[in-house]
Amino acid sequence: MPHLRSLRVLLALALAGLLLTARAATFEGNALSGFSREGAERQRALEARFDALLKRENLREWMKRLSARPHHVGSPYGKENAEFMAGLFRSWGYEVEIERFDVLFPTPKTRVLELLGPEKFTAQLAEPPIEGDATSNQSAEQLPIYNAYSVDGDVTGELVYVNYGVPKDYEELERRGIDVKGKIVIARYGGSWRGIKPKVAAEHGALGCIIYSDPRNDGYFRGDVYPKGAWRNEQGAQRGSVADMPLFPGDPLTPGVGATKDAKRLDRKAAPTLTKIPVLPISYADALPLLRALGGAVAPDAWRGALPVTYHLGPGPARVRLKLEFDWKLAPAFDVIARLRGGERPDQWVIRGNHHDAWVNGASDPISGMVALLEEARAVGELAKTGWRPKRTIIYAAWDAEEPGLLGSTEWVETHAAELSRHAVLYVNTDSNGRGFLSMGGSHTLEGFINEVARDVTDPQKKIPVRERARSYTVLNGDAEERREARERADLRLDALGSGSDFTPFLQHLGVATLNLGFGGEDNGGSYHSIYDSFDHYTRFGDPNFDYGIALAKVCGRTILRFAEADTLPLSFDGFADTLGHYVREVTRLADETRAEIAEKNRRIGDKTFEAVADPTEPFVAPKPEAPAPHLNFAPLQNALARLQESARLYHAALGGPQWQESARTRERQKSLDEVLKGVEQTMTRGEGLPRRPWFKHQIYAPGFYTGYGVKTLPGVREAIEQHDWKEADEQIVVVANTLARLAAEIDRATAIVSGGAK
Amino acid sequence: MPHLRSLRVLLALALAGLLLTARAATFEGNALSGFSREGAERQRALEARFDALLKRENLREWMKRLSARPHHVGSPYGKENAEFMAGLFRSWGYEVEIERFDVLFPTPKTRVLELLGPEKFTAQLAEPPIEGDATSNQSAEQLPIYNAYSVDGDVTGELVYVNYGVPKDYEELERRGIDVKGKIVIARYGGSWRGIKPKVAAEHGALGCIIYSDPRNDGYFRGDVYPKGAWRNEQGAQRGSVADMPLFPGDPLTPGVGATKDAKRLDRKAAPTLTKIPVLPISYADALPLLRALGGAVAPDAWRGALPVTYHLGPGPARVRLKLEFDWKLAPAFDVIARLRGGERPDQWVIRGNHHDAWVNGASDPISGMVALLEEARAVGELAKTGWRPKRTIIYAAWDAEEPGLLGSTEWVETHAAELSRHAVLYVNTDSNGRGFLSMGGSHTLEGFINEVARDVTDPQKKIPVRERARSYTVLNGDAEERREARERADLRLDALGSGSDFTPFLQHLGVATLNLGFGGEDNGGSYHSIYDSFDHYTRFGDPNFDYGIALAKVCGRTILRFAEADTLPLSFDGFADTLGHYVREVTRLADETRAEIAEKNRRIGDKTFEAVADPTEPFVAPKPEAPAPHLNFAPLQNALARLQESARLYHAALGGPQWQESARTRERQKSLDEVLKGVEQTMTRGEGLPRRPWFKHQIYAPGFYTGYGVKTLPGVREAIEQHDWKEADEQIVVVANTLARLAAEIDRATAIVSGGAK
Repeated sequence: MPHLRSLRVLLALALAGLLLTARAATFEGNALSGFSREGAERQRALEARFDALLKRENLREWMKRLSARPHHVGSPYGKENAEFMAGLFRSWGYEVEIERFDVLFPTPKTRVLELLGPEKFTAQLAEPPIEGDATSNQSAEQLPIYNAYSVDGDVTGELVYVNYGVPKDYEELERRGIDVKGKIVIARYGGSWRGIKPKVAAEHGALGCIIYSDPRNDGYFRGDVYPKGAWRNEQGAQRGSVADMPLFPGDPLTPGVGATKDAKRLDRKAAPTLTKIPVLPISYADALPLLRALGGAVAPDAWRGALPVTYHLGPGPARVRLKLEFDWKLAPAFDVIARLRGGERPDQWVIRGNHHDAWVNGASDPISGMVALLEEARAVGELAKTGWRPKRTIIYAAWDAEEPGLLGSTEWVETHAAELSRHAVLYVNTDSNGRGFLSMGGSHTLEGFINEVARDVTDPQKKIPVRERARSYTVLNGDAEERREARERADLRLDALGSGSDFTPFLQHLGVATLNLGFGGEDNGGSYHSIYDSFDHYTRFGDPNFDYGIALAKVCGRTILRFAEADTLPLSFDGFADTLGHYVREVTRLADETRAEIAEKNRRIGDKTFEAVADPTEPFVAPKPEAPAPHLNFAPLQNALARLQESARLYHAALGGPQWQESARTRERQKSLDEVLKGVEQTMTRGEGLPRRPWFKHQIYAPGFYTGYGVKTLPGVREAIEQHDWKEADEQIVVVANTLARLAAEIDRATAIVSGGAK
Repeated sequence: MPHLRSLRVLLALALAGLLLTARAATFEGNALSGFSREGAERQRALEARFDALLKRENLREWMKRLSARPHHVGSPYGKENAEFMAGLFRSWGYEVEIERFDVLFPTPKTRVLELLGPEKFTAQLAEPPIEGDATSNQSAEQLPIYNAYSVDGDVTGELVYVNYGVPKDYEELERRGIDVKGKIVIARYGGSWRGIKPKVAAEHGALGCIIYSDPRNDGYFRGDVYPKGAWRNEQGAQRGSVADMPLFPGDPLTPGVGATKDAKRLDRKAAPTLTKIPVLPISYADALPLLRALGGAVAPDAWRGALPVTYHLGPGPARVRLKLEFDWKLAPAFDVIARLRGGERPDQWVIRGNHHDAWVNGASDPISGMVALLEEARAVGELAKTGWRPKRTIIYAAWDAEEPGLLGSTEWVETHAAELSRHAVLYVNTDSNGRGFLSMGGSHTLEGFINEVARDVTDPQKKIPVRERARSYTVLNGDAEERREARERADLRLDALGSGSDFTPFLQHLGVATLNLGFGGEDNGGSYHSIYDSFDHYTRFGDPNFDYGIALAKVCGRTILRFAEADTLPLSFDGFADTLGHYVREVTRLADETRAEIAEKNRRIGDKTFEAVADPTEPFVAPKPEAPAPHLNFAPLQNALARLQESARLYHAALGGPQWQESARTRERQKSLDEVLKGVEQTMTRGEGLPRRPWFKHQIYAPGFYTGYGVKTLPGVREAIEQHDWKEADEQIVVVANTLARLAAEIDRATAIVSGGAK
C-alpha cells in the first residue's frame, strides 16, 4: 500500500505541531471519545437518567432468587434461572432467545481417596452444612467436590508432593532425584490455573493427581474461617474444571464449532482436552493425613504451606488409592440472549455478558456480576421505553456452563462466528464482583475509552472517581516504575487478558475488542467454588449493601451506552502502541535473561559449583548442560513496532487536525471510519492461530500454555522463548511483526479517512 | 605529618608500575603473608606436623565429658569443667590460671504465665525429658526456661502480638491504631537479637514481654522436630540473655571495669542494661492458646507464623498475667587462661578463645567449638614439647559466662585492658561449630591473611579448599553482584562483626584485630539454648564424626601458628580499603533512600493516597508528615576514604618494592613495622566511643542499637541516618572521616618503614 506510506510522510510533516494539542484535548476536562461536544452533553444527560434508575434492592432480591438453589449446567434450577432471566429481559422490552447447546458435562458416580499406609485414612470429600448459612444444607442438589473433565480411573501408588505442580516444580524435584513416574502427585491450589496441574503431572508420568487447598493460600493463614470469617474452613474444597483450556475452551467434543444438536462430535476417547489421568480436589482436612504420612526430603522453603506438619516430598511411604468414575452425559446449556436493536447502525453489535451457572449456589461467582448486569439491562430497557434508541445494537447475554470451561459463551461464539466477525464491535464481560477497587482488563485499544468511563464513576465508599482509587492503589502497592507511571500517565494501563471467564472466545478466538471489568480486593475470602459461596456469605463479606454492584452497573452501563451511541467507535492507538512497546521490550529482555540463565547454569556445571555446595547427606542430581541460547533477531518486531507507533501517532494527530473538525465529520465519513475501526482487533488475529493451538488466533494475548488463566502477551514469541525453542521464536517474531504491519496499515487507513485522504 | 604526604607523592610515582606485580604475587601460588620464602616453607612443615597430631576421638570424648551435666555460670559442673580444662592445658605445657570474676547472675524463683480470659490456660514452661537423649532428664541441675536480666514483675494486661517486636513492627501497629501502652506484648523469636524485643516494648509503654519460638522460624515448618529430626519440638524453648548489650556487654553492675572481688558495683536498681519490664521466653505449645485467644485485626501477611491459627494482633480479648521473681545473686565466673610464652617477641600476644559455659548441657553451644580449641591447643603444646617455640606469645582462653552476656571475656578484657592494648595483636574467636561451610568474620585488615588460611585447609566432605566451598556457596546463593565478586575477586570478603560472642570486647571495646570463625549450614536444627542441645543431638545432627571440628582446629591452628610465627604481622589494607568503600557507598545510598522515602511518604500524605486506599471497615491511622531530610555533606568521608585507599595502595606497592626485598628485611625493620601494624586496629577506635554508648569505641563495626547481634558498619553515621538524626549524622561523618585520616597516617608510617623512608 504505497499510497499510505507517502501519505504518512505528509501527515508527519503537516501534523507534528498539532500532536501535543490533540493529546491534551483528549484528557482535558470531561471529553468523551467518539462524541462531538454536543453529543457528549446529550450522552451525559442520558447517563444521569440511567444512574437514577439503578436500585440496589433489585440486586439483593435477584441474588437471593438466583442463588437460592444449586444451579450448575444441566441442573433443574439452572434452567429455571435462565427462564426467569429471559422473562425479566422480555419484560424490559428486549427481544429474547434462549439458545440451547448440548455439551459434555461429566458428574461423579464414584469418588474414593484412601491412604493405604503407613496409616489408613479415607478422605471425607464433603463440605458440611453450617448453621447461619441457609443454603449449605441442600445436599441433594449440590454437585459433590470434584474436578470436571477428569478421566475415570482407579490408580494406586506412592504419593509425591509437587508444590503447585507447575513445570519448574518438577525441575526442582528432578534436582533432588525424585521422579513421579508411576506415582500419585498431590499439588496445592495456586501458582497456576488448576488444569495445568494434572496436565504437567501426566506429562511427567504420574498416575493420578490430587489437588488440595492449603490454608497458607486459602484458609486460616489468610484470615478467620467460615462461618466466623470469610475464609475457607478445613472441610471446604474447590471444585473446578481441569479440561486443557489453553488448547481450546468450550465443549470438549466440538472444538471450533457450536455444540448444537446436530453438531459432529468427537469420540470422547479422542477428546484432547480431557485430562490424561484422574484428578480430585480435596479439603485441607482431607489433605493433612496424606501430607503427614509423607517421608523423604523436606520440601523447599517456598513449597511449605500452613498445615502444622513438616512438609516432605516423598515419594511415599504414604501410599494412596484414587478411584473416580463419572457419568459422561451430555447436558443442555441455556444461554439467554437479549437484544435491543440499534437505530442508525443496527449491524454493529455491542455485546455484554456474564455467566449464570455456578458450581453450587454461586452467590459471588457468578451471581454478583449477573445481578449488576441485570440491573444495568433493566435501566437501559427503561430508557428505551421512553423513546430513546441506541445507534448500535445492544446484546445482553447470560451464559450457561462457564464453570466447566466457558462452554455457553464459546459454543455461542463458535455457532455465530461468521455474523459476530462482521457485526461485533465490543464485548464487555463481568463475573464475580465485590467491594474494593476497579480492575480493568482488555484490548489495549480501549484503554483511553475505559479510562474516561472510570473517570466518570464515583467510588461509593470514598466519593472519588473509581479510577483515582485504583490509581492510588497502584501508587501504594506498585513498584517504583508502576508508581511513577500511575502518577504521571493520564490513563491507567489495562491488564492484558489471559483466560478464566467468558471473554476468551470473543477476544482470542474471534478478535472482538473486549473488556473484562469488576470490583474487588476488599471482598477477600475463601468461598470460591464451594457450597459456602452463598447469599449469606456474600452479604456478610462480599458487598453487603451492593454498593459495588451498583458501581459496576454504572461502569458497564456507561461502557455500553457510550459504545452504542458514539459517532465513531472510541478506539485509540497511542496507549496501545505504548503498551505494545512494553511487551516487545519484555520479550527481548526475556530472551536476554534466558540466554544468561542458560550460560550461568552451564558455567556452574562446568565449574562443579553444584557438587561443591551439595550436602552429601542429601540426594543430589547435577543438572545437565544445555545448548547455549542464540541471539534472536528481534529487528522485524522492533521495526514493525516502530511503524505501528508512528501510525498511532499520526492517527491521533489527524483526529486533532483540520479535516476532522466537528463540522467536517459527516455521517458518511464517520461510518467509513467505523467500518475500518471495527476490523482493527481482528487484524491482530491470524487464521492459523498459535503454534499447536489453532483455536487461539489472537497474536497479542493468550492464556499461557503452562499457566492457564495467566496471560502471555505476544504469546507465539514469548512461549517459544520460555520453551527454549529458538527456531520457533525466530519464526514467531516474523509472524507477529507481520501482524503488527497489517495493523499499522489498518490504522493508516483510518488516518486516511480522518485526514480526508483517499478511500 | 607533612613528611608523610610528600613521601606518598614520591611513592606514587616510583611504585605505580610495581603495583600489579605486587598484588599478583600475594595471591600467587602458596605465598604466606608476613613470611619470607624460606620462612613459609618452615611454616608449612610445622603446619603439617600440627595437622598430623589432631585426633577426632579427643573431640568426641571431651564433648561427652564437658556436656555430661548442665554447666551454666555458677553451676558446680561449670566449675568442674573449668578445672578439668585447666588441668588439660597444664598437662600440655601451658602456664595456666583460672581467673575468677563475681558477676550478677539472676536465676528464677517464680515463673507464672497465665491466660486469664476468654479461656483459662497456664503455661507449662518446661521441656520434657526425651528417650534417647541421655542428659535431657537432669532436671535438678537444668536452668529453667527464662531470660536472664529480666527484671522482677507481676503484671496483668491485654495481649498484643507484635511480630518480631522491632521498631518497624510498632510503626505498623501504629498505622492500625494499636498502642501497646499498658498491655503485655507477645513477640516471636527472630528478626533481631532477643534483647531488643523487651527494650523496644518498654520504649512503647508495654508492661511485660513474652517471647516465643514460632514453628515457622524454629520448629516443624523448618524440618522434623526432635527427637525424630533436629528441629525444636513444641515444648522446646529458647533461653537467653535480654540485657541491653548494645549499650555494653558484660556484668551489668561493672560497666567498663573488671568484676573483680573489690570492684565498685552499681546498685542493681541503677544498672542500665537490665530490662525495664519482665520478660519470659516460652515454647510454641505454650504460645498457641495465647495466640488463639487474640482478637482484633488479622496480622499482616509477613507477621504470620506456622501455628494452625489465624494470627490476630489484639489487643485482647486475651488477658494474661506474667509474674517473675529472680534470685539476684552474684555468681563466680571462671575463665581459664593458658599461656605459651613467645621466644622472639613475647610481648606480642596472639589470643584464641571460646566460651565454656552453656545454658544447659550445651553440646553444640559452646562445646563443639571448645573441643576444637582444646585439640588445637593440645597439638600446639605437643609441638612446643619438641623444642619449637613461637615467636609471639600464644594465649588460649576458655571463657565462662558468655551466655548471659559475654561476661567472662568482657570482664577479663576490662581487667586487663591496659596490657591488652599494648600487647594483643590478634583475637580469634570460635563458638558453636558444625557440618557445612566456613564462615569468616572479622577485621577487614585480616582479609588477605585468613583467605590464605582458608585456601590451605581442605573440606573434609568435598576434598577441595574450604575457601572454594564457601566461594561456591556464594556463587549459588548470592545475588548477581555477590556472585560476580565471588568469581572475580581472589579473596572472599570477611563478614563485619556485630556481636553475639566473645569477640566483642576485644574488637569493639579495645580495638584488637579480631577473627570469628566457624563451620555450619549443614548442621541445621533447633536445639539452641534448650535442654536438647546435647551430646546425643549433636552427634546425630551437628557433626557426627567431628570432621568439621577437626577442620576448625586446622583453620584456627594455622591462624594462630602463622600469626605467632610471621616475620611481620600479616595485615593488609587493600581489601580493607575496598570494603570500606562499600560501606561509604552504603551510607550515602542509605541517606539518599531515606530522603526519598520521607519525600514519598509526605507526598502520599499530601495526595491523600492512604485515605483513598484504606478499607473503611478496618481501623486506619493516617501517618504524620515528617520534615524533609536534608542532603548530608559526605565529602569529608569521601575525601578521607580516597586518602585511605591511596595509602593502602602505596603500602602494598612498597611491600613489592626494592626496599623490602628479603635481603633488606632486617629484624629491626620487621620489628618496627610490627610496632606500627599492631596499633592499626586501635586507630579505628575513639576514646569517647559511639554516641550514647561510650563502651563501644570502634568506629567501623558495632552491634546495632536496635538489632543487637546484627552489625552496623560505620555505626555512628549509619545509625544517625536510620534514626533520622541529620545533625548527628553530619557530625559523625566528620568523626569517622577523622578516624580514617588517622588510619591513613598510620598506614603511611608503615609504608615509610617498608620503603626504607624515615621513622
